[in-house]
Amino acid sequence: MALVNDNYSKLKAGYLFPEIGRRVAKFAAENPSAKIIRMGIGDVTEPLPAACTEAMHKAVDEMGNRSTFRGYGPEQGFDFLREAIAKHDFASRGANVAADEIFVSDGSKCDTGNILDIFGAGNVVAVTDPVYPVYVDTNVMAGRTGAADESGRYAGLVYLPVTAENNFTPSLPTGKVDLLYLCYPNNPTGTVASRDTLKKFVDYAKANDTIIFFDAAYEAYITDPAIPHSIYEIDGARDVAIEFRSFSKTAGFTGTRCAFTVVPKGLKAKAPNGESVELHALWNRRHTTKFNGVSYIVQRGAEAVYSDTGRPQVRALIDFYLENAAILCKGLREAGLTVHGGVNAPYVWLKTPGGMTSWQFFDHLLSKSNLVGTPGSGFGAAGEGYFRLSAFNSRANVEEAVARIQQLLA
Amino acid sequence: MALVNDNYSKLKAGYLFPEIGRRVAKFAAENPSAKIIRMGIGDVTEPLPAACTEAMHKAVDEMGNRSTFRGYGPEQGFDFLREAIAKHDFASRGANVAADEIFVSDGSKCDTGNILDIFGAGNVVAVTDPVYPVYVDTNVMAGRTGAADESGRYAGLVYLPVTAENNFTPSLPTGKVDLLYLCYPNNPTGTVASRDTLKKFVDYAKANDTIIFFDAAYEAYITDPAIPHSIYEIDGARDVAIEFRSFSKTAGFTGTRCAFTVVPKGLKAKAPNGESVELHALWNRRHTTKFNGVSYIVQRGAEAVYSDTGRPQVRALIDFYLENAAILCKGLREAGLTVHGGVNAPYVWLKTPGGMTSWQFFDHLLSKSNLVGTPGSGFGAAGEGYFRLSAFNSRANVEEAVARIQQLLA
Repeated sequence: MALVNDNYSKLKAGYLFPEIGRRVAKFAAENPSAKIIRMGIGDVTEPLPAACTEAMHKAVDEMGNRSTFRGYGPEQGFDFLREAIAKHDFASRGANVAADEIFVSDGSKCDTGNILDIFGAGNVVAVTDPVYPVYVDTNVMAGRTGAADESGRYAGLVYLPVTAENNFTPSLPTGKVDLLYLCYPNNPTGTVASRDTLKKFVDYAKANDTIIFFDAAYEAYITDPAIPHSIYEIDGARDVAIEFRSFSKTAGFTGTRCAFTVVPKGLKAKAPNGESVELHALWNRRHTTKFNGVSYIVQRGAEAVYSDTGRPQVRALIDFYLENAAILCKGLREAGLTVHGGVNAPYVWLKTPGGMTSWQFFDHLLSKSNLVGTPGSGFGAAGEGYFRLSAFNSRANVEEAVARIQQLLA
Repeated sequence: MALVNDNYSKLKAGYLFPEIGRRVAKFAAENPSAKIIRMGIGDVTEPLPAACTEAMHKAVDEMGNRSTFRGYGPEQGFDFLREAIAKHDFASRGANVAADEIFVSDGSKCDTGNILDIFGAGNVVAVTDPVYPVYVDTNVMAGRTGAADESGRYAGLVYLPVTAENNFTPSLPTGKVDLLYLCYPNNPTGTVASRDTLKKFVDYAKANDTIIFFDAAYEAYITDPAIPHSIYEIDGARDVAIEFRSFSKTAGFTGTRCAFTVVPKGLKAKAPNGESVELHALWNRRHTTKFNGVSYIVQRGAEAVYSDTGRPQVRALIDFYLENAAILCKGLREAGLTVHGGVNAPYVWLKTPGGMTSWQFFDHLLSKSNLVGTPGSGFGAAGEGYFRLSAFNSRANVEEAVARIQQLLA
């Protein structure tokens, strides 16, 4: 008799975004004339850079011609892309990452979930709170937690709160943890980690044989030159950290699909018998056995992100969203709200007004102003009383959203 | 202290194809003038159908225009593709599969590995022998086996031999198994399963609460009208089977990446407490949490496979490879070899001559005729003494390969 993976039964009812989708769909059906502006899910709105579409047209043509057709590519990604990444994302910032330490994939959501395959069941896992729900849910599915309590916290996970009280800087775990997720610039709070904070975590990881999963999907939004883009800018990080990157928010690839993961050679964890095992070799085995590489066409599009024509086009995209974020921050502050993030990230994290819960404010904003955001409590217990607005939208919509919120709170 | 997944240490040294790659690279380096013809890995050689490249050009243009740009799509795939699949691959053959039972993905290798996530650790797994190595390796990684013996067979797995002695038709397992892999048309043997054989397995699965993983990646190569293309053409299969399909071998998408998995609604397995659990809901949860959908551009390319212009182009591609297979079969038989497969599949499965082992024949064929095939023993213990040749090649190479083998064995 086939048995299911019973860990799935521990998962809380729905992933956050489907629940938002249900409430918005219900409201829209009941209010067909409402002009709803969606600033909930963090999805880009601007078209792909011309350099990327040009490169993909060329690649499509190659695939239609016998002499230039490509079948299976290397599962780890083509050298042309891995080398461009190593040069532009790491060497240019003084971070030591070789091309063959980069594994190209179809998404960071996939990678942050799949990376757990190469780790044993017994590891103790720490996440910040609030946090990107996928980190938590994939650990629940893998059996590394007990049941959830009423606030949504799972037994066995270590939560590191990040709130205004600690200036959105997590404390080190008080005990030993084995796997630790950090996401900077942070989703959902839009805040960043200083070099000192990252150094503190790297040192903790070295002292405790912890592996850090560093999610840098939003690094392109960093405007402050003092903030590291990669954890490998921190001394010693190659001995403790795996880094996840994506083209989704950098170049608008959410529907095009390309990302990558860095597993440094020499990074090790332990086998139960105490021997050290190279994680690069394990991930390579996982990646080649359970994955077959990213579409050649898409990899050519990603390569163009780094070209002489592509770089300024990508920069313009990011600057556009950052200007949206600045307009949001300014407008919301003028409306009397307390606002975090939005300077080095495309997310604005506001304190709900009048002591409302996150979901109360969600319903209030939807029903009164026809605006959709994301309830902070959906990202974790410590997100209660907060609310996320995304800067991924047209300028007109951002300005209209600000006007509506100012009117609502006037 | 972070611990690795120690199951990986049970994996035999290398995946089959890297070992072939190493031997070929060594031979090529030592014999730089040798004109090597590669018929080992099952990778397509002909360009994409024009309908597919046209559709992808159009999709790239849409992605470059704000009004038609697409961000995140549904993780399960766009309706336009799921509906085309349901109509052309299933309804047209009388198989009852709804569009929302189809999960579009980036590859069948990924899907056949990832599907294990939703099943518990304790399931007993059966595979045919020889078999596509990924089925076995992903179960080893997931901890469902013990160690491998000298022949490469893992403790705890149930092997169902398929050899000339049983006319390449596996017997039912003698005991109860929980998960059972079938791949038809078969990789590596190139043989097919009759309606009666499939019915026998569906009945066994019903009687034993077994879930069948049916891999139909090569269904487009079936030429015999009596052979089912989908397991859902068999009564009762919706209650016991998950089917995997791919555009890789159908439309030459090995480097373009698109596939899909069918999980029928109502298909159930058990929780440890004895309750029945819908696998569609579990797979949907897995798919939405650990995957973010296939590139919009690629899904438009896949949709074109089913268009009025695309269908005959795809048919021509397959007929071309099938003619290659027919040339191979005829030529090898003329050379005195015993040959299986090659009629409803792009693979020819030959008995090694003169009692050679599979690897002996591999080295012999490489060194004397500069031809690369795949040793049958690489697919499992019962593949020893067999050898696979792929029909994915140019006509000239196929004809030259036949001539060289005829000369070698003359």
